[in-house]
Amino acid sequence: MSGHKLSMKAVILAGGSGSRLWPMSRQQLPKQFLCLEGNQTLLEATISRLSPMVKRSDVVVVTSEAHATGEAFEALEGLQTILEPIGRNTAPAIALAAAWQMDFAGGDAVMLVLPADHLIKDVKAFQKCLVIARKAAEEDILVTFGIQPTRPDTGFGYIQTEGNADVRQVLRFAEKPDEATAERFLSEGGYYWNSGMFVWQASVILSEIEKHLPDLWAVLASIRAQWLQEPWQEVVRHRFAEMSSISIDYGIMEKSDKVRLVPADIGWSDVGSWDAVYDISHKDADGNVVNGEVLSLNCSNTLLRGSSRLLAAAGLEDIIAVETPDAILLCRRGESQSVREIVDAVKVRGGGEHFEHVTVKRPWGSYTVLDDKASGYKIKRIEVRPGSSLSLQSHQHRSEHWVVVSGVATVLRGDETFTVKKNESTYIPIGKKHRLENRSNMALQMIEVQVGDYLGEDDIERFEDSYGRVK
Amino acid sequence: MSGHKLSMKAVILAGGSGSRLWPMSRQQLPKQFLCLEGNQTLLEATISRLSPMVKRSDVVVVTSEAHATGEAFEALEGLQTILEPIGRNTAPAIALAAAWQMDFAGGDAVMLVLPADHLIKDVKAFQKCLVIARKAAEEDILVTFGIQPTRPDTGFGYIQTEGNADVRQVLRFAEKPDEATAERFLSEGGYYWNSGMFVWQASVILSEIEKHLPDLWAVLASIRAQWLQEPWQEVVRHRFAEMSSISIDYGIMEKSDKVRLVPADIGWSDVGSWDAVYDISHKDADGNVVNGEVLSLNCSNTLLRGSSRLLAAAGLEDIIAVETPDAILLCRRGESQSVREIVDAVKVRGGGEHFEHVTVKRPWGSYTVLDDKASGYKIKRIEVRPGSSLSLQSHQHRSEHWVVVSGVATVLRGDETFTVKKNESTYIPIGKKHRLENRSNMALQMIEVQVGDYLGEDDIERFEDSYGRVK
Repeated sequence: MSGHKLSMKAVILAGGSGSRLWPMSRQQLPKQFLCLEGNQTLLEATISRLSPMVKRSDVVVVTSEAHATGEAFEALEGLQTILEPIGRNTAPAIALAAAWQMDFAGGDAVMLVLPADHLIKDVKAFQKCLVIARKAAEEDILVTFGIQPTRPDTGFGYIQTEGNADVRQVLRFAEKPDEATAERFLSEGGYYWNSGMFVWQASVILSEIEKHLPDLWAVLASIRAQWLQEPWQEVVRHRFAEMSSISIDYGIMEKSDKVRLVPADIGWSDVGSWDAVYDISHKDADGNVVNGEVLSLNCSNTLLRGSSRLLAAAGLEDIIAVETPDAILLCRRGESQSVREIVDAVKVRGGGEHFEHVTVKRPWGSYTVLDDKASGYKIKRIEVRPGSSLSLQSHQHRSEHWVVVSGVATVLRGDETFTVKKNESTYIPIGKKHRLENRSNMALQMIEVQVGDYLGEDDIERFEDSYGRVK
Repeated sequence: MSGHKLSMKAVILAGGSGSRLWPMSRQQLPKQFLCLEGNQTLLEATISRLSPMVKRSDVVVVTSEAHATGEAFEALEGLQTILEPIGRNTAPAIALAAAWQMDFAGGDAVMLVLPADHLIKDVKAFQKCLVIARKAAEEDILVTFGIQPTRPDTGFGYIQTEGNADVRQVLRFAEKPDEATAERFLSEGGYYWNSGMFVWQASVILSEIEKHLPDLWAVLASIRAQWLQEPWQEVVRHRFAEMSSISIDYGIMEKSDKVRLVPADIGWSDVGSWDAVYDISHKDADGNVVNGEVLSLNCSNTLLRGSSRLLAAAGLEDIIAVETPDAILLCRRGESQSVREIVDAVKVRGGGEHFEHVTVKRPWGSYTVLDDKASGYKIKRIEVRPGSSLSLQSHQHRSEHWVVVSGVATVLRGDETFTVKKNESTYIPIGKKHRLENRSNMALQMIEVQVGDYLGEDDIERFEDSYGRVK
């Protein structure tokens, strides 16, 4: 259509589990699934800005099985996904997506590859770059987008180019440099940040993989042979781990003579730290970025982010403060890279604040832990979406008291089935098989008081589950 | 005894409702009732450090009715109190306490007057000062303790003295100075901070009140005539407000010729700000004062205080951070006086975080609000002390679901009385008279889920109450 031989498809890489925006991002809900501005997740924004060049139905998201069945369920709903059972860096993900395109999604196409967690402010400029890149890709070129560096950042790889063409010759890929080298790159000119965004034909990247990554190619070929016989999802689940972990930059881009760079002046940020969030955010007259329940007095150049509680700040300068229901981060601006170290220390401490939020999303809705500090009991607020149900389950070590505070619960308990309405309650004894359902068309909210000597999430035996979670 | 004509008594002024240590201090639980270090409240520490010179049974605490029947109940338990129905500054409180000593507590005595919320690190030195002051008081002197200034603080009144005697002549009282004046005081020498701690005979301060504050004296005389006929607590309740609000410094100390100063080098602090708390606290090698659930990385000269959640800090310098379950304060060190402004703004905002904590102490125990953000329901954890009971009450707008998680509840509901044990629940419908009791000798813990359209604390009709709260 529109004069193009090949249609255009997008592959969005959403497997990462970064901790650099902790405590907002967690291992179970990394930043691609967060709403940093407004109501859109970074993933959703990444898809939106492709319109109308690439339709939503022409997007495939490569992400991890754990995200898809866990907290990111909602963010991924209605999207075509390829689920990795294990993380294997970018080359296997891209190889699989290209092969999937060839075998299941209409054959060869121009394939735009994008990380799910970047921010692009100038969508028009971005779409202009896409037009240029698409044309180049149709001439068998592997296009990488290069971002004009604005500072000697040591956190990015650099790509050296020559000339002034829209589609530029690449001289070399340079790994993340030290500061002196980064400064030299900037003063020399011709260097771009490696954005991790690519455009190529599926067939062309596959033949480059065959040439430069023969081992990966062999596994892929075997997977392709098998998935013509069996459900492809199952084949991927069982065999993806056979591919070795390697990045597309290292495996292909640094080696192939088909690589060219399209300079992209598009207001790009990888949102890779709270400092980066500060940089891209709207500031008040005193340079403060303020979200949520915040009271600030005489503060300047701060990022203050409250969620559940009042954050009151006085006389702060160059401070980042991020409040979540179970953890608060404070750090000096310019030092947000130390969040990684903080997260490592949080892991070691063992309180679980690195792993998931107090509100945990589930395919059927969500639960929020309201009180788990004491021994002997634990309190949760449970929300079940209309038409959804939890698994048929039982617990060895706890009883549960349920009070419905809005909607209507349908409860299976042993051999009985009954409804529990707003302002009614019921009781699930230890060991009793039970299932909670919301058969209505409005949300169900329920308070659960668990009583028992052991209250871990792993005290659950599942007998039936709508989300494939029975082992 | 011990060679003294008069026994020694202590009056502790604990009526203040300071907000300067917000969010730890709240209007309902000001700093005299807080444990800033260890397990002792400042009030309790003030009493402890008098031993063995003044016995606990010779201490009377002047505080507000609101504190005594509210959150400070526990902190005041077992102490002799005089309850002010309304705050009236120090002169009326001291006048009343002196008259009470004369009329009800054994007649004339040497009376030590102390604020409840100061910190004294060198108890031995303090007790030496008491010996000196007692001797002077026996010679009809009004002793005030003066603190050697260590910095040109503009937050204190100053007292100018002459000579080098243990009991020194006072030249004048100077109001809180500006910085230049404060610096001059320090370089001139002979100036002391006004500590608000006094020693005198009850009879002597009363005759000075008669002389210098005749209006106050007249009201006091009338109250004394009346309380010989009626219960003194009731007389104070009904008539205290007739005394006009005036400080003992302004009313007596600046005017009387009986005033002398005892220099007190006793490691004193009024703990009047988070900066003051920082100054008096134990610091780690990097100058950090750390309490509670805190993870800090490369921080220096900070005060980091976590209570209920993880506070993670990286690269901070000269920052004060105080975390409580519903509010977090962040401020730059040296600027903690702006907490007052913050508290004013919190009041205006209307969330109630200036007023009370998430955990509210009551005479019968305490309750903790676990969830009150949603409409339609509210969740509390309720703890009832052994042998205590809540009032017989009913609610017009809410039902209550109770789940006992430890101990045994005795529940009166309408005409029934029954027990609810751990892992059992019960239900109180709208409008039903009910009462919760703990008749056992172990603590009762219960989760309450309130359901209703209006969930304010004021939806309560009390029919019987053990703590005088039936109107």
